[in-house]
Amino acid sequence: MNLQKLFYPKSLAIIGASNTPGKLGYNVLKNLIDHGFEGKLYPVNPRGGLVQGIRSYTSVSDIEDKVDAAVTIVPAAITPDVVEECFSRGIEFVTVEAAGFGELGARGKEIEQKLKNLVKEYNCHILGPNCSGIINVNNGLCQPIGLVGDLRPGNIGLIAQAGVYASGILWGLRNVMDFSMIATIGNKIDIDETDMLEFMGSDPSIKVIAMYLEDIRRGERFLDVARDISSHKPIIVLKGGRTEEGKAKAVTHTAAIGGSRQSYEAVFDEAGIIQARDNDHLFDLARGFSKQPRPSTDKVMVITYSGSQGITATDTLSEMGCGLADLDKPTRESMKEHIPDLVATINPADLTFDQNPEQVRRIMEIAARDENVGGIMANLQPEILNSYVEKMKDIDTNGKTVVFSVTGREFAMDGVIGLEALGFPVYSTPERASEILATMHRHSINNFKPRDPKVFQVDRGKVSRVLAVARKMGMTTVGGFGAFQILKAYGIPVAECYMARTPEEAEELCSSIDGPLAFKIESSKVLHKSDMGGVELGVTEDFESAFIKIIDRVMARSPDLMRKDIDGVLIQPMMGGGKEVLIGSTYEQAIGCHIIKFGLGGKYTEIFGDVSNGVAPLDEERAKNMVRNTKYIGRLLEGQRGEDPYDIVAVVDALMRFSQLVRDFPEIREIEANPFLVWNNGGVVIDARFAVVSQETESLVCEDSETVKEAA
Amino acid sequence: MNLQKLFYPKSLAIIGASNTPGKLGYNVLKNLIDHGFEGKLYPVNPRGGLVQGIRSYTSVSDIEDKVDAAVTIVPAAITPDVVEECFSRGIEFVTVEAAGFGELGARGKEIEQKLKNLVKEYNCHILGPNCSGIINVNNGLCQPIGLVGDLRPGNIGLIAQAGVYASGILWGLRNVMDFSMIATIGNKIDIDETDMLEFMGSDPSIKVIAMYLEDIRRGERFLDVARDISSHKPIIVLKGGRTEEGKAKAVTHTAAIGGSRQSYEAVFDEAGIIQARDNDHLFDLARGFSKQPRPSTDKVMVITYSGSQGITATDTLSEMGCGLADLDKPTRESMKEHIPDLVATINPADLTFDQNPEQVRRIMEIAARDENVGGIMANLQPEILNSYVEKMKDIDTNGKTVVFSVTGREFAMDGVIGLEALGFPVYSTPERASEILATMHRHSINNFKPRDPKVFQVDRGKVSRVLAVARKMGMTTVGGFGAFQILKAYGIPVAECYMARTPEEAEELCSSIDGPLAFKIESSKVLHKSDMGGVELGVTEDFESAFIKIIDRVMARSPDLMRKDIDGVLIQPMMGGGKEVLIGSTYEQAIGCHIIKFGLGGKYTEIFGDVSNGVAPLDEERAKNMVRNTKYIGRLLEGQRGEDPYDIVAVVDALMRFSQLVRDFPEIREIEANPFLVWNNGGVVIDARFAVVSQETESLVCEDSETVKEAA
Repeated sequence: MNLQKLFYPKSLAIIGASNTPGKLGYNVLKNLIDHGFEGKLYPVNPRGGLVQGIRSYTSVSDIEDKVDAAVTIVPAAITPDVVEECFSRGIEFVTVEAAGFGELGARGKEIEQKLKNLVKEYNCHILGPNCSGIINVNNGLCQPIGLVGDLRPGNIGLIAQAGVYASGILWGLRNVMDFSMIATIGNKIDIDETDMLEFMGSDPSIKVIAMYLEDIRRGERFLDVARDISSHKPIIVLKGGRTEEGKAKAVTHTAAIGGSRQSYEAVFDEAGIIQARDNDHLFDLARGFSKQPRPSTDKVMVITYSGSQGITATDTLSEMGCGLADLDKPTRESMKEHIPDLVATINPADLTFDQNPEQVRRIMEIAARDENVGGIMANLQPEILNSYVEKMKDIDTNGKTVVFSVTGREFAMDGVIGLEALGFPVYSTPERASEILATMHRHSINNFKPRDPKVFQVDRGKVSRVLAVARKMGMTTVGGFGAFQILKAYGIPVAECYMARTPEEAEELCSSIDGPLAFKIESSKVLHKSDMGGVELGVTEDFESAFIKIIDRVMARSPDLMRKDIDGVLIQPMMGGGKEVLIGSTYEQAIGCHIIKFGLGGKYTEIFGDVSNGVAPLDEERAKNMVRNTKYIGRLLEGQRGEDPYDIVAVVDALMRFSQLVRDFPEIREIEANPFLVWNNGGVVIDARFAVVSQETESLVCEDSETVKEAA
Repeated sequence: MNLQKLFYPKSLAIIGASNTPGKLGYNVLKNLIDHGFEGKLYPVNPRGGLVQGIRSYTSVSDIEDKVDAAVTIVPAAITPDVVEECFSRGIEFVTVEAAGFGELGARGKEIEQKLKNLVKEYNCHILGPNCSGIINVNNGLCQPIGLVGDLRPGNIGLIAQAGVYASGILWGLRNVMDFSMIATIGNKIDIDETDMLEFMGSDPSIKVIAMYLEDIRRGERFLDVARDISSHKPIIVLKGGRTEEGKAKAVTHTAAIGGSRQSYEAVFDEAGIIQARDNDHLFDLARGFSKQPRPSTDKVMVITYSGSQGITATDTLSEMGCGLADLDKPTRESMKEHIPDLVATINPADLTFDQNPEQVRRIMEIAARDENVGGIMANLQPEILNSYVEKMKDIDTNGKTVVFSVTGREFAMDGVIGLEALGFPVYSTPERASEILATMHRHSINNFKPRDPKVFQVDRGKVSRVLAVARKMGMTTVGGFGAFQILKAYGIPVAECYMARTPEEAEELCSSIDGPLAFKIESSKVLHKSDMGGVELGVTEDFESAFIKIIDRVMARSPDLMRKDIDGVLIQPMMGGGKEVLIGSTYEQAIGCHIIKFGLGGKYTEIFGDVSNGVAPLDEERAKNMVRNTKYIGRLLEGQRGEDPYDIVAVVDALMRFSQLVRDFPEIREIEANPFLVWNNGGVVIDARFAVVSQETESLVCEDSETVKEAA
């Protein structure tokens, strides 16, 4: 989708333009006039005449000229007619700013469907509805429904689902942040965040992109686009709506461990996106990237007038993996001239209350010439902030990253605005300034490698057949033998496994299997096998009794369970000596991605919740990173306290094969392979379960996976 | 210590008072004059004459009147003489504001020692050195070395180690925060944070106390005082200097797991103190508590003009354990009149861009009358913030907690200052406002119970003897049999344990012990038994060979180890089936407290780092909380996935006994009992090690604890 005409229309119709101050249709036209829109304006108003001094038209059809784009601020109910009129008159882009659509429920969704149909029919495009349009500072295209003050052209691109980002939030922010373009996307029935991102990514005026998102459509495409851009242009995202609703709907334990929040984080990580905690953080980061180069090293020169604020800055730097710069001897010597005798350290340089702008400037310039210094954080005094502005005007920072902190910043905004205009971001605490510097450094290390997933030789036909059988039987989960068949078809090693339907069968089977055995009830009605007494471990004799004991115990604990609901008992040789891990996947409908999960497996999976997430497809590097990114299990697999290392290669291989499986069969919505028992050499899946999409039935079954060894 | 004369002196000498603007001695006197100090001022200046229009004295001895207190701003080197002159003239309190003391190293520490000696000799008191004195807004006592603008009397007490809190930081803050007293304590060679806390705790003008601390002296006293106060007056602490230096010095693994940061957190938790993340957070919290009542319920009414900001507020409330209030039907109905039709929910009430002050006020008043509502968070528009001030003047909030958020707050400070003056704290994001509200609610639930530790019947004499023997041998650690003797003397159950010095002894011993055995090398030179191959588990036969194998393997891996360094092999029956926990303790010199630790034990203790901390002495409730406060092991002990619960009572009993042990023998600086194996009924310590204070030797030995069962 080429959005050139949306951002750079030569002519623009404003449908619903008004002469009445306070009306939204007044504001939109007023904004366009005040910001000096470089194209031609065509106000449309049923009454006709002059609107804000410009000749208006009673309908779009009356406009004789060719028009590139339109904005409509008419009620939801008549919007489809207006949009159709635009499209049929050759207007390719219509921005629908009115609210009252899908966000209000069924009736609004109906209207949205009509709009979607028009988009298809005419092959034209809609921005919104329920948005505040676009601001392009470069050509004065300023469409918000709230009045917007003067904007200086800058290098920040902002994309937001919420209209407030194009008006209310700008009210003060425009004093310290310089935007190139702002796009609000609202209900995004057509043009979405990915389209906007792609456009801003390719625009050379934009150096950093900030986004406020509540969800992502077309996750895979978003990821591809964002990944491309973030390698050369930082993208910062604030994700609103961090609820964990997804959890309640999860079918397997795997899906329940990491909510959709973790999946979003996995997508953002994979895309090289920086995640903001809140609005302040979003804009603090954006200002840093917008105004300063990224630090060349992780070592920082800290200047302060207060020892305590030097300490908190140092704390933060060290917590973020950066540190204080060790200065060269010549640096230290020339710096000493400017530092009071009463101060114990050169870095942080505590200049005490006597700190003055000239002194700070000198020390900054000396520090900037030391190659050990990647960035400079100077803590300035709010009382005299204005006097810093003049001194910083022609400072030579030698390409080093400079950030300032001012405790009491909000009371010294004149000075802040002055320093920001010179290109120095000013933050409210030394901690925040240090954190931004450290984040900028982290992002300057671009270690992105294109995804290069292996393609394994697999037996797709086999999997298709298993899934087809399940579908035919109305099953939405596949466990036991079916699950093992799927795994085997994809070259994933599985444990030996036998099914006994009667005590006698158990006796007969077991007499031919060596070693202690695990007995586990097999019934789609028993959700938590272990909790319900459906598991016996280490069975070595008297197999008939063990079979009967399990059935009796489970039935005693589940009054509604019938004997016919129990298929029998699954028998597996006990295996030990390894580490139990979990491999799983979940399809995130809201994002449109399969997320692969890896973590500490076994009986206590949910207690430890030690899971890392990756976006399918995984290549080897990414699969390895997933193992590394866990809190515990990755380190345990390395072999601790004199142990030999466990077979991480086997884990990585399995992760890649799972990733190929869910890409080949998108109908697999969840997988939990737990435990996958990993030895020093090799490993096997001991229990696995799949959830698949089925339209026939909605009764999804949740089943625990069990371990056949004692937890390691 | 009664600080009445320090805060309310009737007469005050200012030694080093100056006529030269810019000098510190000028600023101190100027502050006192400008703030209308209600006592008599006696400037002291060697030149005499008028200082800032007040008759001065060439020395303290020249002052004929009785003087209550003095401030000195003379160089460090002559400070002891000046202080002695004051003390000998009957001045009880001297505030030493000059820097150049202990913070600069040995020379400065010498001067401080002189000052300390004077304090003892004269039984008088020093505040500082290296501080910015005291501000008491109630009597105009304003001593900072930086000029301070007008202060309105308020209800906040502020205690800070750093002088900047009494000047630079106040510069803007005084516009939105109203203090009663501010005390800076600097190097606190005499008067410290606890003295100040005690004074402000008992002052009825103070409603909330904010503190900036880098360390705590006299931790136990601090805890007692803070605990008393925090039950009726919130205390908020920002702890600077969050470094983990302590870790490097730790002797046992236990001490290495939680750094001093965790110990501080344990002390603050025990004291009911709220911990701030940074300066902004400290003052945001203080403003909330200062201006508003604490919420009566955890349910909040959210008002916003932007859906996205309603979402982020809701996210934060839910993350903090609060939520949106379910409004009563009448409330919803009267509220609907004021909410636009286009909005889907009543709470959050999204008033869209049309939000106006009258409407917000109406909705607030309706919400305040609903008993489901504990607090109200309203997100205001910065563009029109001034217009809210008038509307909020006589609003009836019915005793509910009200906080505001203004995105772009820093650009609307006039309105912010107006609202703050009305008693409404205004925060920069909906997230922050919601977080403060939630924290205020959390603190309104005062569940403090006085500590009531059990006193167990123990054999103190036995422990004294073991420790005496160790001291005599120059040992700084006690492990093996010695450690077991100490534990037994305090009624803590320990595992069976035998020592074999030769292969033959091993053979003989083992023939009389049942079941599989654990063999572990016993040598003070082998630091990591497991890693060095010094452990064999599950030995059932051929005991001589097992003994030899261990010795050979360890010696092969440790080229410098001599056979004579190895005492032999420790033999224990293998025990299984339980959960491995860790109990430990560490003495925090910087705080002056024994911290008891409880966590997930066994081989992987450090990997999981799952430890909770408590301050000795522990009573039953607090010991139980320690078990509960772990991330994993507390839940595992409850019995998961069909397991019977483990014997938490035995754990709690042991924790209390350890707590009594370290209180009885403060020379025990660290303990690690790991694993303590807990069964469904009872438990035993399988390995333990003590570190004790010894002046004879500094070569502390670090030794791993080992498990005699396979990790559970």
